[in-house]
Amino acid sequence: MWAEAGVPSLRPGRRVWDRFAAFLPFPPDPALDLGEGDTPLLPAPAVGGAVGLAHLFVKLEGSNPTGSFKDRGSRLGVQRAIHQGARRVGTVSTGNMAASVAAYAARAGLPCVVLLGAEVPPVKLGPVAQYGPTLVMVEGDYGRLYRESLRLGPGLGIHFSNADEPFRVEGQKTALLEICEAFGFDGPDWISLPVSGGGNLAAYLKGLDELEGAGLLTRRPRLLGVQAEGCNPIAAAFAAGRERVLPVAAPRTICHAISNPDPPSGTRVLRGLRGGRLGEMVAVPDAAVEEALAWLGTLEGIFVQPDAAAALAGVLQARRAGRLRPEERIVCVLTGHGLKDPSIFDRHPPAPLRTPLTALEATLAALPGPSRAARIPVELPPGGR
Amino acid sequence: MWAEAGVPSLRPGRRVWDRFAAFLPFPPDPALDLGEGDTPLLPAPAVGGAVGLAHLFVKLEGSNPTGSFKDRGSRLGVQRAIHQGARRVGTVSTGNMAASVAAYAARAGLPCVVLLGAEVPPVKLGPVAQYGPTLVMVEGDYGRLYRESLRLGPGLGIHFSNADEPFRVEGQKTALLEICEAFGFDGPDWISLPVSGGGNLAAYLKGLDELEGAGLLTRRPRLLGVQAEGCNPIAAAFAAGRERVLPVAAPRTICHAISNPDPPSGTRVLRGLRGGRLGEMVAVPDAAVEEALAWLGTLEGIFVQPDAAAALAGVLQARRAGRLRPEERIVCVLTGHGLKDPSIFDRHPPAPLRTPLTALEATLAALPGPSRAARIPVELPPGGR
Repeated sequence: MWAEAGVPSLRPGRRVWDRFAAFLPFPPDPALDLGEGDTPLLPAPAVGGAVGLAHLFVKLEGSNPTGSFKDRGSRLGVQRAIHQGARRVGTVSTGNMAASVAAYAARAGLPCVVLLGAEVPPVKLGPVAQYGPTLVMVEGDYGRLYRESLRLGPGLGIHFSNADEPFRVEGQKTALLEICEAFGFDGPDWISLPVSGGGNLAAYLKGLDELEGAGLLTRRPRLLGVQAEGCNPIAAAFAAGRERVLPVAAPRTICHAISNPDPPSGTRVLRGLRGGRLGEMVAVPDAAVEEALAWLGTLEGIFVQPDAAAALAGVLQARRAGRLRPEERIVCVLTGHGLKDPSIFDRHPPAPLRTPLTALEATLAALPGPSRAARIPVELPPGGR
Repeated sequence: MWAEAGVPSLRPGRRVWDRFAAFLPFPPDPALDLGEGDTPLLPAPAVGGAVGLAHLFVKLEGSNPTGSFKDRGSRLGVQRAIHQGARRVGTVSTGNMAASVAAYAARAGLPCVVLLGAEVPPVKLGPVAQYGPTLVMVEGDYGRLYRESLRLGPGLGIHFSNADEPFRVEGQKTALLEICEAFGFDGPDWISLPVSGGGNLAAYLKGLDELEGAGLLTRRPRLLGVQAEGCNPIAAAFAAGRERVLPVAAPRTICHAISNPDPPSGTRVLRGLRGGRLGEMVAVPDAAVEEALAWLGTLEGIFVQPDAAAALAGVLQARRAGRLRPEERIVCVLTGHGLKDPSIFDRHPPAPLRTPLTALEATLAALPGPSRAARIPVELPPGGR
């Protein structure tokens, strides 16, 4: 059907990279395609029902090839590095970004250098090492390491890719384009997403500006940027009405992937939100993140990183505070798959029942009946539901 | 574009479940949709080039919602269980199957029971527990546990789902349909896939028979079923020209997800291959699986489970033995994401370099230059390349 002369069409239909070619700075090189983008957008009716939101949706960015949203940016970022003559790429990261840049570097046939803080636990290196980069652990201040990489890169012939690099931002923008497209460019009302350095939220703002500029949007979604209370530099500045971000001294949260204490795109995000007219920033406690994570898994069958669950935690908090109306259409961007962060398994070790085979029937018969546990009760604002 | 009256279209274009509705036993219930299917099919030019295969492709089943191909079967299998009045579902598994059934049970709002062997390491339970099933560890013979679950299920009101259940097979079939469709129903020449209990290969055979019966196929792909040498009951029977499978006493392989010692669909698969006319079975050593895993990661930027890499290992082995021609079009079905099996990180612990920040420049300058390592040399059959 879609194949020509024996060359397979790699996915039916046109990909986001083709449908929105007019919004991209250059045509993506098929050689770097790892299948990123066009991720599922699903309703979350059980969670929505529990908090009185009739139109709650989730965008599963964990279905990208390395398991996180970063792949959209890496697709274009690595291609741009090659355009610019890079013969090596690098990144400063320990998590999603490192795996993603290393994967696309491998796909491109480019050597890759990943710089890590010296305190990174070995368990986090495995999923990055599979793509064959050189891993370098650096003793010293992590913020200085970030700046030092950018200073040293050009002289050493290493193109260091970081989250707010312009061409990465162009790639990240495609998730926003997909969401608006799915709603016929008439909404949704809110898009909630976790915020670390601010590059991804900046990408969403840029995408919205461009769709608006093209006259395509009949309703512009507002953005809800969510940080963890233990590392909330942008949310704190937003709450205080400042446009300047003050670094957080000692980040402390289970949301490791959004714990950038000195977010490079902080000011850009705060200006872009126009004092709250185009969106808001909030912070959520770790306990709320754990709750959102458990609800997604047990009520919807969706397992995500804690950082991703923060997007939902922000929505639940806003709903309980009466800031969201029951009929509003809300999309939570779930930025990474749960398998990316096994630390949750240590915090909540599974507790299986044990039985000999001879007692299996009795054990199963004694389980609670199939009447599903009642929906988790939630305190709602007056007039909710 | 695709939205109607404020209800978003969850993905652009028609899904495999819609495009091939005529090949499915019933219309999939949108309420159970977790975004499964329509996975990327990508060229693997670097690996193909290294072994002189001009048209080598990979199908990324790890991009399914729980990270494995099982989700296609769970979508239909859980729906069927509900049709049949099930108020609880269960499975006997420790890996991909357990996570997948638990996720779709959660999506459906059904309680789920997962029966595990008593020797399962706790690290494997985390990704299953996230979906909220009851985990039961059972001391005793694993093969007997499997049969016991099927015997006890009806009386206890638990619908036990296993890999060769007919309606699961109907769901698994959709991957085969996608592959043939991508090649315009004219090939490919070979589809390679890992084989455990045999249910998935049986699903592919069924799909091919149905496409052929509908007059859609201009070229029928042959199937290459791959087992690990340490657990090769179906491949051993195939090699001996038998249609009856003898159980393996003590499976021993790194491919845990394809180490079923007594495959329930073994005879079905052997009959379906028609003595080799419709496909073949091979076994590969663990070292070949490790090689394939490393090549996919470092040459293509694709990280998979060892079991998935076995599909490529089988192709590399067949190529080196002169059984595949350079111009043949080959699809390796990579059944699960690498993040599903962290045991590889223990076998190959990453070895990062270490440096103080003050010596970073010197450390980076001393790295080998950007000339990419030469392609891994491979011994090819005479006339190859």
